[in-house]
Amino acid sequence: MAYRETSLVKQRKATQKSALLYAAETLVREGGFGALTIQALAKSAGVGVGTVYRYFSNKDELSTEVFRRATAREVESVKLTLAIDESVPNRVVAASQVFAQRAFAAPKLAWALIAEPVDPAVDLARLEYRKTYSALFEAVIQEGVDSGVLVAQNPALSASALVGAMAESLLGPLGHAACNELTTKALGEFCLRAIGVVEFSENK
Amino acid sequence: MAYRETSLVKQRKATQKSALLYAAETLVREGGFGALTIQALAKSAGVGVGTVYRYFSNKDELSTEVFRRATAREVESVKLTLAIDESVPNRVVAASQVFAQRAFAAPKLAWALIAEPVDPAVDLARLEYRKTYSALFEAVIQEGVDSGVLVAQNPALSASALVGAMAESLLGPLGHAACNELTTKALGEFCLRAIGVVEFSENK
Repeated sequence: MAYRETSLVKQRKATQKSALLYAAETLVREGGFGALTIQALAKSAGVGVGTVYRYFSNKDELSTEVFRRATAREVESVKLTLAIDESVPNRVVAASQVFAQRAFAAPKLAWALIAEPVDPAVDLARLEYRKTYSALFEAVIQEGVDSGVLVAQNPALSASALVGAMAESLLGPLGHAACNELTTKALGEFCLRAIGVVEFSENK
Repeated sequence: MAYRETSLVKQRKATQKSALLYAAETLVREGGFGALTIQALAKSAGVGVGTVYRYFSNKDELSTEVFRRATAREVESVKLTLAIDESVPNRVVAASQVFAQRAFAAPKLAWALIAEPVDPAVDLARLEYRKTYSALFEAVIQEGVDSGVLVAQNPALSASALVGAMAESLLGPLGHAACNELTTKALGEFCLRAIGVVEFSENK
């Protein structure tokens, strides 16, 4: 019976950790990483501080894990959009717009993920994920250059430039919900110009 | 005589602080902000730790001051380049290239200024300076849109997108000195495409 008990304990722990991460992300959605402390999480999740420490040894580890979980979801959305059955220009524009729309849907969380001054451990994770985003765009831009839809360019440079452009250009507008549609449109147009489309039609 | 003494002390203090900041930036040029500690600075400047603490109350304050001094210099270079007597497209391309060339001339310092995971106080200063850069580009892009040299666009969004693109696209190449010329050229071309030039000639 020992094995079964261990398994149940594991299951219970995984469930509790998941609930804590969910509560932690909710705090970040409301007040950025600045609002995420071990104490605040314990209170919000209705557990003792000691329980939180059982899963996260300090605030930095907690912040980093919340960051990774939320960012992995954003990367997945961009990845899926870049894989739709459309032309390269359409896919790049759509991906930039999905990125922007998702950011506007949770502006404080987006700000926290993209740029909130926070522990170096989160900064380090940001750099990693920027590389992941860049690699996704690079493959699509390379495809466009190879097929002649895009002008000759350095796909790696264009990809990281696009990722930087997407992140930086939202920081101001994220503070103004009313900017949502215009910003998303302008960002799509910027990206479209930047990748140098040889010939573009709205249709495939 | 009391006044004169005070003035001399002030002068001596300013000189010593300036020497410490110079030594501190040299450490960052060699090893990033990770190499900048109060102890390392004292050793490198040949003074006691107590002397360093007389000017900087902790490592974060020291890092932030080094960051501000070095970044203000970079901003000034970009500002001067954006003000040369050339067409808007030429000025934007030249500014992006000056930014890249200066970064390649001191790659570790550039990396430290742009992206090294570091104390939140430096992150906060980064966000401020990004805004300063954006405002400079916005004015020039607005001028280009008004005169019809650039396509209609949201100059504020394009400006911050360019700033993000410039910073992000250098992070990988900064690790490879050999990429200098190709990267600088590719970045200039990216920026040129991104701002949507209606008609462009290499000459004014």
